[in-house]
Amino acid sequence: MNFLKKIESAWESNNSLVCVGLDPDLKKIPAHILKTDEPIFEFNKAIIDATGDLVCAYKPQIAYYSPFRAEQQLERTIEYIHMKLPGIPVILDAKRGDIGSTAEMYAKEAFERYQADAVTVNPYMGGDTLDPFLKNKDKGVVILCRTSNPGAGDIQDLKAGGEKIYRIVAAMASGKWNYNNNVALVVGATYPDELMEIRALVGDMPLLVPGIGAQGGDVEKAVKNGQDSRGAGMIINSSRGIIYAGTGMGFAEASRLAAMELRDEINRHRK
Amino acid sequence: MNFLKKIESAWESNNSLVCVGLDPDLKKIPAHILKTDEPIFEFNKAIIDATGDLVCAYKPQIAYYSPFRAEQQLERTIEYIHMKLPGIPVILDAKRGDIGSTAEMYAKEAFERYQADAVTVNPYMGGDTLDPFLKNKDKGVVILCRTSNPGAGDIQDLKAGGEKIYRIVAAMASGKWNYNNNVALVVGATYPDELMEIRALVGDMPLLVPGIGAQGGDVEKAVKNGQDSRGAGMIINSSRGIIYAGTGMGFAEASRLAAMELRDEINRHRK
Repeated sequence: MNFLKKIESAWESNNSLVCVGLDPDLKKIPAHILKTDEPIFEFNKAIIDATGDLVCAYKPQIAYYSPFRAEQQLERTIEYIHMKLPGIPVILDAKRGDIGSTAEMYAKEAFERYQADAVTVNPYMGGDTLDPFLKNKDKGVVILCRTSNPGAGDIQDLKAGGEKIYRIVAAMASGKWNYNNNVALVVGATYPDELMEIRALVGDMPLLVPGIGAQGGDVEKAVKNGQDSRGAGMIINSSRGIIYAGTGMGFAEASRLAAMELRDEINRHRK
Repeated sequence: MNFLKKIESAWESNNSLVCVGLDPDLKKIPAHILKTDEPIFEFNKAIIDATGDLVCAYKPQIAYYSPFRAEQQLERTIEYIHMKLPGIPVILDAKRGDIGSTAEMYAKEAFERYQADAVTVNPYMGGDTLDPFLKNKDKGVVILCRTSNPGAGDIQDLKAGGEKIYRIVAAMASGKWNYNNNVALVVGATYPDELMEIRALVGDMPLLVPGIGAQGGDVEKAVKNGQDSRGAGMIINSSRGIIYAGTGMGFAEASRLAAMELRDEINRHRK
């Protein structure tokens, strides 16, 4: 199924815009899980089991796996989501970007090896470097637009011909790059004004919104400014706020409560 | 040893600005190597054995390993270079970039897991996302500036306040981002005018220059426009042109000849 259809159906069936970021940190994984053979996978599995009916997507961040030779546990995690929750898309957060022949390999990594439904990519190198991702009609391509970090403006806020770079990226993303209707954008909750602007520019395109919780973004402002015409259109990510909501034996239950709370808080502000 | 010192010493000791891109493609690896247990490593090892005295650096592109679960062969390749050629730096081409806490993980991937001397990174997310790389004094950080691909200008050529984005990146890279004197820039040989401009902006900073050979960049123009005040300063990458110079049993010997030819052609145009 096409990524756009899959995310739309997940928004609806779970009545949720929450995306859980699967960024497992070995220093924070409970002791009883650390003892298992595949602690990262077991940790993720418990979180997935506890939150599957409360979310619209999962977003594993590959950088939390690759330094630890845990690629196989990432594969197993995604496989598990597909098996247990076939309606919930998996966005591989990898922020890839390279010249065409290399980007083909990165697309292979995301879509074939990891079987992700979508992948995050960086637009700095230009449209031709996004094509190897965009041409996969059934896969989502989530392009960095206005990121959530403090220094996001260094380049993204520069003004060219009166328009800021992130607005130019949003325009290209919703225009010529969206020839397969499979593009989404990353826009940080930490910049609610920019979120509103970008929503106005891109119609009902899905926005992946990091930055609430640990990074300080405000949920109410993010939802009011970022939702689409149907009161959806957002994939609001929380990683640390959900997966480390509790410690010890009850960590998965705590993650369920945190996901439920976030889902409800978001839903209170939706149209 | 600091990356800058290591690359300077490699330029001198091998009298070469050639960097060999280790982008192994299983479809192009000779049959007798494909039969081995670790064909990617064996292929690389043969290329390294054949070219070690002719190059200033090796640049494995991680995208040619990760789709095929060949991370361990990438580790072994880099380990082999360090063991056999301790004076030759390894640049991991990964074009990473993410918010601080995630960038820490990517730095761990490049510098701890893979033991690379330097890594390529993408500046779109801003200076704070580069810090986790930059703060490693002994490691090189190779920032994308003006890339070699046809669509490079989509964002990099936009003009902000009269200055093109790639010039702004070059200025930040040689200014405030270079607090550990460990920054280098990616500038494609396919854009010789931009190469000249950037050289004028950044003094003797090392430039990693892809784009000759298969991508069509001209060696003479690249060297004339890109060399520093000492007739060095460039890490001129060739991947396909060297590693697939020959086929069958003689592939390594052919790669040696191709590397030698490129080294000599480059040297003819140096000051």
